[in-house]
Amino acid sequence: MIDLLLVGIGSGNPDHLTLQAIKALNSADLILIPEKGKGKEDLADMRRVICSDLLDKPGPRLVSFDLPVRNPATPGYKARVSDWHDAIAEVWKDTILAENVQDARVALLVWGDPSLYDSTLRIAERLGRVMPVRVTVIPGLTSLQVLTALHAIPLNEVGAPVTITTGRRLRDGGWPEGATNVAVMLDGEASFQSLDPAGLHIWWGAFVGMPDQTLIEGPLAEVATRIADTRTELREAHGWVMDIYLLRRA
Amino acid sequence: MIDLLLVGIGSGNPDHLTLQAIKALNSADLILIPEKGKGKEDLADMRRVICSDLLDKPGPRLVSFDLPVRNPATPGYKARVSDWHDAIAEVWKDTILAENVQDARVALLVWGDPSLYDSTLRIAERLGRVMPVRVTVIPGLTSLQVLTALHAIPLNEVGAPVTITTGRRLRDGGWPEGATNVAVMLDGEASFQSLDPAGLHIWWGAFVGMPDQTLIEGPLAEVATRIADTRTELREAHGWVMDIYLLRRA
Repeated sequence: MIDLLLVGIGSGNPDHLTLQAIKALNSADLILIPEKGKGKEDLADMRRVICSDLLDKPGPRLVSFDLPVRNPATPGYKARVSDWHDAIAEVWKDTILAENVQDARVALLVWGDPSLYDSTLRIAERLGRVMPVRVTVIPGLTSLQVLTALHAIPLNEVGAPVTITTGRRLRDGGWPEGATNVAVMLDGEASFQSLDPAGLHIWWGAFVGMPDQTLIEGPLAEVATRIADTRTELREAHGWVMDIYLLRRA
Repeated sequence: MIDLLLVGIGSGNPDHLTLQAIKALNSADLILIPEKGKGKEDLADMRRVICSDLLDKPGPRLVSFDLPVRNPATPGYKARVSDWHDAIAEVWKDTILAENVQDARVALLVWGDPSLYDSTLRIAERLGRVMPVRVTVIPGLTSLQVLTALHAIPLNEVGAPVTITTGRRLRDGGWPEGATNVAVMLDGEASFQSLDPAGLHIWWGAFVGMPDQTLIEGPLAEVATRIADTRTELREAHGWVMDIYLLRRA
């Protein structure tokens, strides 16, 4: 039986880790580190820095694996993602078996929180179909919480609901019906530009919690272009960009 | 100028604190501890335990204040809450001034995350109207994250949106239009009972992260009564109950 620990680590600042997360990682025999290939070493390096800065010495063994890429030939978004998750579970299994451990505690460092727009739990479920696994989840700060903290704003008005959605849905479906507070994650295309900006205020952040964090806020009509331009510049400078925003209707 | 640190501490387990939260609390000169009166000492005691277990010695000075109660005579829910927040800001001010500090760093320990269904930011804004204040927010785990971690479930399905709302809204407004994932907070009345349970699954937890945590999950039609009864028993045993749940439409 493998004890699989899915440990939320926040959005890039080692100080985002909870004591619970540090204890869980220290209790592991192996920590699996995904490698995303050339030009994307940043994220694997940040995981290594967190482990070397915060964990006991000698500490758990860090084992890298090459993260499979989605097959663009697979038709349909859901099937493409599902096949990709199967492939990752297969690599996890091979990586664990190659370490020749039994009844091991195996941890993964998950950006943000394993419960929110993250596929680790779904991959763990697939792993459980091919080897005996017991899953434990340790929550972590989401980039959304880091965003609202940096702007020192509440996510919701008094007693009002909050909708958390994706850039794709905002583009395809427009403003969610009845919503006043909309947090948008996983937005690769600055989808706020597809909205009628009248009456909307935006609090935006890129690389929140990391050394290069960048914040912009204001009426959407006034700042949308500046945010989109800043986003493009950051992506060109870093090779990638992670951003998030909250929209509120006045 | 007062540096006011609003520090999210998670849902009752000292291990929920992040390194950032511990550093922020250690950097404070004063920590304000609200006292809610007889029979409700639990929460103040838990704040004291967190400080004594996790902070440097001698560490910041802990200063108690009596939390004002809402005036039931004030007509209107919003006005009642607004007046109450004014009264709390007034007590914060008096408590800080009585300590005879200038340019002090003053911290408050906030359950969960200061951004989500919490009034501390709004009270801080009011304090800023009567004395010079610079607010810093340190995010913390919400009970919602602890709930999903304990159940080892994602908050959302792949690419699907999430609505976070209150018990009051669920009772008064029914199932949020277009929603498939609904997280309910601040529910004093087991409001899931007001819904047609067909096709709904519930993951419920009380005192999540604390020693007395209690979890129930299943089809709402099958477990609603058991959850409501368990909730009543826990409230009778403890004098109060904090619970939260996620509903998902199949």
